[in-house]
Amino acid sequence: MTVSFIASLSEILGPRGFTRDADMVDPWLTDWRGRYTGRALGLASPADTGEVAQTLALCAEHGVPVVPQGGNSGMSGGATPDRSGTALLLSLRRMNAVRSLDPQAREITCEAGMILQNLHAAAEKEGLRFPLTLGGKGSATVGGLIATNAGGTQVLRHGTMRAQVLGLEAVLADGSVIDTLTPLKKDNRGFDLKQLLIGSEGTLGVVTAATLRLLPAIGGRVVMWAGMDRITTARRLLLHCQQRAGELLEGFEILPAHSLRAVLDHLPDARAPLAGDHAWHALIELAAGRGEEDALLPLAESLLAEAFEQGLVEDATIAASETQSEAFWLLRESISPAERAIGPAMQHDISVPVARMADFVEHAVGKVEARFPGHEAIAFGHLGDGNVHFHVLAPPGADRARWEAETGEAIASFVHNLVAEWQGSISAEHGIGQAKVAELERLGDPVALAVQRSIKHALDPHGILNPGKLLAPRGATP
Amino acid sequence: MTVSFIASLSEILGPRGFTRDADMVDPWLTDWRGRYTGRALGLASPADTGEVAQTLALCAEHGVPVVPQGGNSGMSGGATPDRSGTALLLSLRRMNAVRSLDPQAREITCEAGMILQNLHAAAEKEGLRFPLTLGGKGSATVGGLIATNAGGTQVLRHGTMRAQVLGLEAVLADGSVIDTLTPLKKDNRGFDLKQLLIGSEGTLGVVTAATLRLLPAIGGRVVMWAGMDRITTARRLLLHCQQRAGELLEGFEILPAHSLRAVLDHLPDARAPLAGDHAWHALIELAAGRGEEDALLPLAESLLAEAFEQGLVEDATIAASETQSEAFWLLRESISPAERAIGPAMQHDISVPVARMADFVEHAVGKVEARFPGHEAIAFGHLGDGNVHFHVLAPPGADRARWEAETGEAIASFVHNLVAEWQGSISAEHGIGQAKVAELERLGDPVALAVQRSIKHALDPHGILNPGKLLAPRGATP
Repeated sequence: MTVSFIASLSEILGPRGFTRDADMVDPWLTDWRGRYTGRALGLASPADTGEVAQTLALCAEHGVPVVPQGGNSGMSGGATPDRSGTALLLSLRRMNAVRSLDPQAREITCEAGMILQNLHAAAEKEGLRFPLTLGGKGSATVGGLIATNAGGTQVLRHGTMRAQVLGLEAVLADGSVIDTLTPLKKDNRGFDLKQLLIGSEGTLGVVTAATLRLLPAIGGRVVMWAGMDRITTARRLLLHCQQRAGELLEGFEILPAHSLRAVLDHLPDARAPLAGDHAWHALIELAAGRGEEDALLPLAESLLAEAFEQGLVEDATIAASETQSEAFWLLRESISPAERAIGPAMQHDISVPVARMADFVEHAVGKVEARFPGHEAIAFGHLGDGNVHFHVLAPPGADRARWEAETGEAIASFVHNLVAEWQGSISAEHGIGQAKVAELERLGDPVALAVQRSIKHALDPHGILNPGKLLAPRGATP
Repeated sequence: MTVSFIASLSEILGPRGFTRDADMVDPWLTDWRGRYTGRALGLASPADTGEVAQTLALCAEHGVPVVPQGGNSGMSGGATPDRSGTALLLSLRRMNAVRSLDPQAREITCEAGMILQNLHAAAEKEGLRFPLTLGGKGSATVGGLIATNAGGTQVLRHGTMRAQVLGLEAVLADGSVIDTLTPLKKDNRGFDLKQLLIGSEGTLGVVTAATLRLLPAIGGRVVMWAGMDRITTARRLLLHCQQRAGELLEGFEILPAHSLRAVLDHLPDARAPLAGDHAWHALIELAAGRGEEDALLPLAESLLAEAFEQGLVEDATIAASETQSEAFWLLRESISPAERAIGPAMQHDISVPVARMADFVEHAVGKVEARFPGHEAIAFGHLGDGNVHFHVLAPPGADRARWEAETGEAIASFVHNLVAEWQGSISAEHGIGQAKVAELERLGDPVALAVQRSIKHALDPHGILNPGKLLAPRGATP
């Protein structure tokens, strides 16, 4: 069976499109954080949607599992095959063309393998921008961003990837092609299959192309840094910014003193934006379109002056140049590697209702540190989205492997239980992948899980699309 | 079987919740346009979600079809049962409570039976607004608006109902309850079931409550009326308005001379906004938040002055008062009844890509009038959404019944074929209901239809939820 499958696949894809050479395949069998490693019976790199369709039809015929992969920069192991070696790794990276770009309609249609950074560049060339960015922009692809409904630092104003997708093209488990690339602003012809595919992590279909919305390029931005006593004060500052700046508020990120210290230790040339010590820090960006950018600085100044008066900030500064703005953002974007350099930590990507996040963090930090003595809990990130990255750091000097094995899982369960009590999500933006299947099974709404399994079975009856990801198989016990 | 079903249902719902009295039931068996009439074995009006769940569980047990109904103001017969009399009519109107309203988070959670007009009022009391409105606001309910992904005149800026729904609660075919009412701005725990239910027309579940987003009340608005030579000029004016007013552009509706004349004949007190004759008219609204409304009038004046210079308008005026603004909007909202008063017409609710709609209308009017001599084709509505209502009027003096029987269907097919050629939608905002099932079957993407049927079968294996609506049954021939 495998022999005839491989011969047929080689014929469909040709030598550039299919390889079993370990030097070519192995680099893609481990996720970028190095947490998961699998095996595959080969790497397929189709050149176009027709080849993807033929590949999936062949896999369906032979019952061969398929693991779709974009930039392999996901956080939950969703693009890494299991260890059985029975799955075909299906890379979309070769399909990276811009099919069309309409500057007037502000729409781009591109293939799934297009890298986010290149999408930014293509938009910029037309005086436009694509309003979603994240740390992995140099490798993350459009298809992966859609499959995981990616977030990032611009969600506050512009929404997640779901809000950017106007249409998409995808190949289903039987090799048939869904094409909704032509964007219609209004279309009520039944269930919105596009919405179903977004965030489905390759378990319902393989995204091959998308039409995305673009926005006018910004005319300018003003980036601020503020220090404050408590995260609940940061929450009040956020409300103040939303009230004063409205639609101009482009970003609002928070970090605790611990994270800033870690970043300053990690980046030799970095400087603290403020002279004094503060328990919490907020990075705030205002952005405006061309012709409106002159209003930003006066707005930022009066916004901060009022914040001082109201006791919302202990100290604050406005970046004096674009270079300094970049430097402020670099501090924020370096938290993950800086914290990683300190030592082992359990990382949780969680959300609760926006209004409750500050209270949740205060509550959860206290609970976690009481339950796990010697550990430190820190939260940073997208306060304006009700989404923080909640890290629990091992005691100094802990042995990573032993600590992860002995305590890590207990910490994750404890944190996720708290999140569930507060009606939040154990995966705000990183997805379920293989990392959180068991936890979703344990804590998810059984009705929602049953419906999801029904849909999965309806669209992929033989379970060949990214098996073991997102959903535990029917009848499996957690 | 029916006897025991009715006894059990009476016990669950009590005398206020279930009736078979024809005086109570019959008014709800005909859609409001009087196009469809059905029969039902009774009218269920549950008081809460628990009663809806028990009702559906009982219906599942007995194989009794269920037709959910809100305000019964849909345009496609989606809430009218068939003539068999085997279905239970399930009204959500009794469930009309506001469960909570959080002014700071700008969120309201209300039950499915809440009437749109009352939702507007509840928001206004808190200095907020709900940014979706339509002609049937006095009867349309939140549940119906969600089930049909309703549109209206504010989609240009604020999106359809889909964009307003932050969370929902629904009862599924087996009586189980999905609850996603707690809104999380970011949540990547698998397929977005909320999105699947929005626009599913009661075929996958019964919406019982929703959490909706609210916006700050507007501080003021400026309403303009412009006359021009061609619809393609109106399209250029729209682009000009978008470029100059950006986010402040709240509405952009068009109507041809024919529709304005019809409205002026129909409304005795109405006056034409402009003195001269124009082939096309545009109704344009700018709106701004509190504190920003003073900028609107100067913006409107310069915007129109530039439009004159560029030859985009033949004449234009700005409403001098809120009363006149209301009068302008009344002209727009009266097109449907005014056109109806003239004589029989086939009405099509269609969309194509926004950028192509003006060209489409010119093309389609010519084609239709050439193919059906003596008929007049007119298009009006939401040019900014790529969605017009395309009416084909019978020749003067035509007998309605005979004309509808002999020519009506041929016209609808002809128009829908044109829409399909232009990659548009045969239902932009009114849904499929029972009115367009056959046309969707004829013109829809077979892959998409197959997937929709798979999902329907997975979630409602016995086909009890709103049978015959939206999708033709599996294996049925169109």
